Amino acid sequence: MSIGEFEVISRFFVRRGERAPAQEGVLLGIGDDAALLRVPDGADLVAAVDTIVAGRHFPLETDARSIGHRALAVNLSDFAAMGASPAWATLALTMPTAEPAWLEGFAAGLWELADRYGVTLVGGDTTSGPLTVSLQLLGHVPRGTAIRRSGARAGDILAVTGTLGDAGAGLWLARARTAARGQALTGTDAPPHTGVLARELIERFEYPAPRVQFGLAARGIATAAMDISDGLVGDLPKLAAASGVSAHVEVDRLPLSQALRELATPLQARDWALAAGDDYELLFAVPPDRFGLLSEAASRIGLALTAIGELGAGSGVTWTLNGMAWVPGVIGYDHFR
Amino acid sequence: MSIGEFEVISRFFVRRGERAPAQEGVLLGIGDDAALLRVPDGADLVAAVDTIVAGRHFPLETDARSIGHRALAVNLSDFAAMGASPAWATLALTMPTAEPAWLEGFAAGLWELADRYGVTLVGGDTTSGPLTVSLQLLGHVPRGTAIRRSGARAGDILAVTGTLGDAGAGLWLARARTAARGQALTGTDAPPHTGVLARELIERFEYPAPRVQFGLAARGIATAAMDISDGLVGDLPKLAAASGVSAHVEVDRLPLSQALRELATPLQARDWALAAGDDYELLFAVPPDRFGLLSEAASRIGLALTAIGELGAGSGVTWTLNGMAWVPGVIGYDHFR
Repeated sequence: MSIGEFEVISRFFVRRGERAPAQEGVLLGIGDDAALLRVPDGADLVAAVDTIVAGRHFPLETDARSIGHRALAVNLSDFAAMGASPAWATLALTMPTAEPAWLEGFAAGLWELADRYGVTLVGGDTTSGPLTVSLQLLGHVPRGTAIRRSGARAGDILAVTGTLGDAGAGLWLARARTAARGQALTGTDAPPHTGVLARELIERFEYPAPRVQFGLAARGIATAAMDISDGLVGDLPKLAAASGVSAHVEVDRLPLSQALRELATPLQARDWALAAGDDYELLFAVPPDRFGLLSEAASRIGLALTAIGELGAGSGVTWTLNGMAWVPGVIGYDHFR
Repeated sequence: MSIGEFEVISRFFVRRGERAPAQEGVLLGIGDDAALLRVPDGADLVAAVDTIVAGRHFPLETDARSIGHRALAVNLSDFAAMGASPAWATLALTMPTAEPAWLEGFAAGLWELADRYGVTLVGGDTTSGPLTVSLQLLGHVPRGTAIRRSGARAGDILAVTGTLGDAGAGLWLARARTAARGQALTGTDAPPHTGVLARELIERFEYPAPRVQFGLAARGIATAAMDISDGLVGDLPKLAAASGVSAHVEVDRLPLSQALRELATPLQARDWALAAGDDYELLFAVPPDRFGLLSEAASRIGLALTAIGELGAGSGVTWTLNGMAWVPGVIGYDHFR
């Protein structure tokens, strides 16, 4: 049963009483022509927007809760890369029909993450059409402290958070699971890859964990940062170009999870780690004498930080594998190529 | 020929040198993980978002320039209703392929309006998928001066800007023109309604003029305002409810353009004026002793302002036509009904 636009908003996106958390800086939220917000004194406003489209950024059969989570997570990751504090979001939700069960799940995924990071939904627009979720995240950063892509210097160490390639593997496994379920219905064998390790990788795809806390900790330590959700191969050249430096990566040093190393061939694991994206890990540039400081900040919150290469003079990106010059056979994600 | 995502952004959405207008308050625009902006001291941040979907908010065959114009205009209208100054925008553009000719037109429509109101594009996301344009507008208003929906009081006069129903008629005529063009190709008569009046109405649909300047002028005079782009019938009850008052409208007083009165039957003109929406006119509540002041502000910028009814105690909305109680036979737009 599809419900009306007004009911969609009031039932799923306006929270009242105990369900409504503290709304810092919100003078006027959902329900007027625009939201009124107050940026703290001495802070700059930070704004990011990301869109996720059914069938492009996630499989059509993805759980609504995962979609709600992802819509916010992808933007939180941009904030993490700037070292910024998220505060407010607006949601542009386009969907074929307004199904309460789907909306319930979507909102649950969104609120879980919003509450964890103190984000208030202050406005939005619901329209009918093919499932497309565009979320804009607003927040702030003390003046002059944001971490940009352009601050890296020759000699800096390149480091990444967490492990790479898990989400790429997770997406592949989720698709295989769906396909297998289709086969099972037609009488063939049970789904493969239903073990603990596979579930761990699928979880990494379906519920990415943005590194907001670490981004805040990296302020004043890292010289540059960026979200590498389009894959290291596509994203690293952007950081190098913005900073006017060259970059070198030792591919053997890319951090791979135990699950990925168990379930994938080395070649496949490398390709996912380099190009699949969707891990929502961060890439940092940090001077060698401050790498220890950044590492300690990561340890304190139980996050891995791995040096994978360094920056130099000039321009361009080079790679080595087992000590030999190497060229990635995969490219980053481009929507129109 | 479809082009790549990076080229889409750098060729059509980043403006350099002479083409780049003054960017007030932009510390970091397109090209990093998020934008960094500075809200003026003593001002509150204002945020609005609106999505337009091909085939829902505009016919599939609509000119790209009109779509670019509309994406920003619909948000500017929300700002007008708050009495807020627009400053920055982020754009989430989802489109099937990246065609340079289409993008050229879309960007031209967007820039024309952006330059007129001093809006800088500071970020965005381009993704492939069915044509959906979600634009978020950011700006500011001196603390405590925003016009809300909730400030109206019993005894206030209800007034609307411009004329109503033109865009509804314009959309109908644009569709008739397209259908006729199809017929012409198959050998039947030439398109109807190609006269000056029809073109005027189509223009009202394709290039709505947001009332930003008047919204700013109404600060401190009007007690409440809202954008009535979903139609007066659907939107007025929201203003009345938010303010805790009842509303009464004399339908005979709705301002209709000469073009609409010439080309439509009185019944049809009334229906469009009440429910078609898309005119992007504003509804105001203003105390009787300040109505003259608001009228003068409208006259100074050559905009019509028409009193159409008044607010009273209690709740609900009533209508009269030719002095008789009357009930609209049309309803406002709801995406999921």
